[in-house]
Amino acid sequence: MSTWVDVPNDSDFTIYNLPFGIFSVDGNEPRAGIAIGAQIVDLAVLAKADLLDVEEHYFLKPFLNDFIGLGKEITRKVRLDVQRLLSDENSELKNLSGALVGQNEATMHLPVNIGDYTDFYSSLEHATNVGKMFRDPENALLPNWKHLPVGYHGRASSIVVSGTPVHRPKGQVLPKGEKTPIFKPSGRLDFELEMAFIIGKETELGESISVEKAHEHIFGMVLFNDWSARDIQKWEYVPLGPFLGKSFASSISPWIVTLEALEPFKVEGPGQDPEVLPYLKSTGPLNYDINLEVSLAPENSDTQTICRSNFKYMYWNMAQQLAHHTVNGCNVKVGDMMASGTISGKDETAYGSLLELSWGGKKSIKLQQGETRTFIEDNDTISMKGYAIKNDIRVGFGEVSGKILPAKINI
Amino acid sequence: MSTWVDVPNDSDFTIYNLPFGIFSVDGNEPRAGIAIGAQIVDLAVLAKADLLDVEEHYFLKPFLNDFIGLGKEITRKVRLDVQRLLSDENSELKNLSGALVGQNEATMHLPVNIGDYTDFYSSLEHATNVGKMFRDPENALLPNWKHLPVGYHGRASSIVVSGTPVHRPKGQVLPKGEKTPIFKPSGRLDFELEMAFIIGKETELGESISVEKAHEHIFGMVLFNDWSARDIQKWEYVPLGPFLGKSFASSISPWIVTLEALEPFKVEGPGQDPEVLPYLKSTGPLNYDINLEVSLAPENSDTQTICRSNFKYMYWNMAQQLAHHTVNGCNVKVGDMMASGTISGKDETAYGSLLELSWGGKKSIKLQQGETRTFIEDNDTISMKGYAIKNDIRVGFGEVSGKILPAKINI
Repeated sequence: MSTWVDVPNDSDFTIYNLPFGIFSVDGNEPRAGIAIGAQIVDLAVLAKADLLDVEEHYFLKPFLNDFIGLGKEITRKVRLDVQRLLSDENSELKNLSGALVGQNEATMHLPVNIGDYTDFYSSLEHATNVGKMFRDPENALLPNWKHLPVGYHGRASSIVVSGTPVHRPKGQVLPKGEKTPIFKPSGRLDFELEMAFIIGKETELGESISVEKAHEHIFGMVLFNDWSARDIQKWEYVPLGPFLGKSFASSISPWIVTLEALEPFKVEGPGQDPEVLPYLKSTGPLNYDINLEVSLAPENSDTQTICRSNFKYMYWNMAQQLAHHTVNGCNVKVGDMMASGTISGKDETAYGSLLELSWGGKKSIKLQQGETRTFIEDNDTISMKGYAIKNDIRVGFGEVSGKILPAKINI
Repeated sequence: MSTWVDVPNDSDFTIYNLPFGIFSVDGNEPRAGIAIGAQIVDLAVLAKADLLDVEEHYFLKPFLNDFIGLGKEITRKVRLDVQRLLSDENSELKNLSGALVGQNEATMHLPVNIGDYTDFYSSLEHATNVGKMFRDPENALLPNWKHLPVGYHGRASSIVVSGTPVHRPKGQVLPKGEKTPIFKPSGRLDFELEMAFIIGKETELGESISVEKAHEHIFGMVLFNDWSARDIQKWEYVPLGPFLGKSFASSISPWIVTLEALEPFKVEGPGQDPEVLPYLKSTGPLNYDINLEVSLAPENSDTQTICRSNFKYMYWNMAQQLAHHTVNGCNVKVGDMMASGTISGKDETAYGSLLELSWGGKKSIKLQQGETRTFIEDNDTISMKGYAIKNDIRVGFGEVSGKILPAKINI
C-alpha cells in the first residue's frame, strides 16, 4: 500500500498506522485528526464532505470519547476509509480544502477524557530489580506477583499530553538514618518507561471481561511516562501504595495507535510459570513487539539515549490485565487508561527507569560533555519513543516528551 | 427559622440543611433538587419561574458538576434563596406547579460525575486496629502514619448511589497455610463506615491548596460505604495497595450536604502529637461532630444497629487531607471525591468495619433471632446513617444502603 502524501522512510505515521488524536490550529477549538507522515487529516472536514460514515460533530469535540464509544465497527471503518482516501489510487482529498493540516502548525491535546487510570506492574525484570533494591535481594518478588498482574489505581487528573512541562514535586521525605520526615523538593525524581491502553467499550458493574474478549474492549495504545519521585514514594507507600510520589504528573504521547494497526506485531509472551488460574489463561500471541527507547537531554545539551527496551518483554499481557481488573465485577468506561508498569528488559541497558539504570543512585550514568546523572535534574527533558517494524511495515507512536522545571517556590 | 413544608422532628432534611441531589420521576431525565422533609424542591422549576439567579439548564443535567463549578458564591445563594422561599414568611412556591416532588415518588442518582476518587486512612483507632490484626500488635501504626494523612487512589467508576445492590465479588484468595491462591467468591466481605467530601473548585496542575483555603475547594459531604473484600485485599495489597478488594463497588448517600450547612457542628479534633510539618498545621475547629451508625439487616429479618461512631474522632481533618493531596502539585477537579477512611472510635461499639467488630472474624456479632455474623452474608443489607444536632438544629445525611447479592455464576 502506498500513499500520495509524502511520508519519510522513518516516519512513525505511515499509511499502515493512522492513529487518532486531538489537535488544534491557531487557538481554535480542539478537534479530531488522524496522523499521516508530517500531516494531520482533519476528520471533521472529511465528515462534512460526506466522505465518512460518521457525523461531523463527533470530530468537533475536545476528546475522542464519544467517537470511540461508537464502537469498533465504526471506528475501524473510519480508519479504513481514511486509508483508502490517502492511497495512491485515490485523489479526492487532494482538492478538499483543509483536509490536511501540517503537524508543525498544530497543537496536540489529551486525546481522551480519562475517567479512571490504573497502573500495572507487569514487567518481571522491573519488579525483580525494585524488589532487590527496596526489600530483600534473595526474595525480590513478592508471593503474589506471578499469580496475578499486580496493579493499583493512579491519579487521572494529572495525566498530561507530551510537551507539557512538569514542576519538580515537593513532599515529605525521610532523610537517611532519621525518624522524622522533612518537607523538600524531591531529590530522586525519575521516569518510568511504560505503555498504556485505552478502553474502547464499556462494561456494566458486575460484568467481567475474559482474556479472549479483552481485545474488543481495547481501542488502542499510547506511550506513557509515569514520572516518579522515589524519595516521596519510599516514605509514603506502605501500606496503601504509591500516592504523591506519582500523582504530580504522568505524560502520554498524543496519538492513539489502534489495536488493528498493531495486529501484525503480535508475538508470544514469555512463558508463565507457575501456571496461572483459569481466568488468566491466555493462548496465542498476546504480546506486542514494540521497540522502545528513552532519551535524556540536559538544558542546552545533546539528547542521549539512555535505555532501549521492548514491550514484548512483559510477563503479563494486556488481555490478562483487563481480565484481572474486571474479574471482581469492576466496570470500565470508554477513555479509561491502563498502563503497563515500567517496561524493563534483562539487559542493563533495557532498564526502564533511572532507579534501575543508576541502581538506586549508586551508579552514575555518563552523558555527553562530561555530564552524569543518577536521577533527573532541573531542566532535563525526558523523551520516549516507540515503534514496531516488520517486513518494511512501520507503525510508531511518535514520542512522549516532558521537561522538568524547578520546584515552585510557594507551597 | 421555620418552614411551611411539613418536616418531621427527626427529619435529616430540615430548613437548616437543604442538601443538593439528582433525582428523576417516572423515568424522566434526571435533574437537580434540594431535599426538604420528605419532599424535593425541583430547582429547574424554580429557575424557570425566575426565582433563582441560575439558568434553568444547569439544573437539567444528570450531574451537579456544572452547577457546582459556578462557584460557592452562586451555589450558596441558590441554597439561601431556596431557604427563604421555604420559610414561613414566604408562600410563592405553594402555588408554583411542580416545585415540590415527594421523595417517595423519586429515584435518586449519583449526584456528581466523579473524576478521581481518593480514599484516606485517617482514623487513628481504625489504623491501629488493622495494624494490630494484619501486622505487629506491638507496632500497629506504621512510622509515616502520624506524619501524613495516608491515602491512596481508588476506583471512581464503581461508585454507586444508595440502593444499588452489589454482587459479592470473586477473586484470588490465599487459603490459610497454602502457597497457591484459589479463585472464589469473597468469604470475608465487609463494609467500611466513611464520609467523603466533594471538590467544588478546581486547581491547575502544579498548584497546592493550603489548610486555610481548603474549605473554599470543598462543596459538601456524603456518607460513604467502602465495601471491602478482606480475603482478596490481603493477598493482593502488598506492595502497591488495595485494588480488586475494593474496586467492585463503593456506595454513597444521594444528598450532598453543603459545608455551609455543617458549619455549626465544627469541633476541635484530637491533638496531633508529634507536631506535623508546617504545610499540615491547622488551627481552630476543623473536625465535625456528626453522629454515625451502621445497621445490618439479614433477608426477612429486623434491622439492627451494629456500630455507633462519630466523624469528630478523625485524627486528620479534611483540610489537612486536601492540603496533603495537593502539596505535590496534583490538581483537583470539580466532582472529585475524597473519602475519610473507616471512622472508628475508641469504644468497641464504635468500630466502623466488621473486620474490627469481629476482630478479624474471631468474635461473633450477635443479631436478633439468634443470628450471628463475622462478615457480610448474601442478601444482607448494610445501611449507614449520619446526622449532626446542636441547639435543636438537626442536619443529616439520610442514608447509604446496599444489599449484597450472591456472587454471579459466570466469571
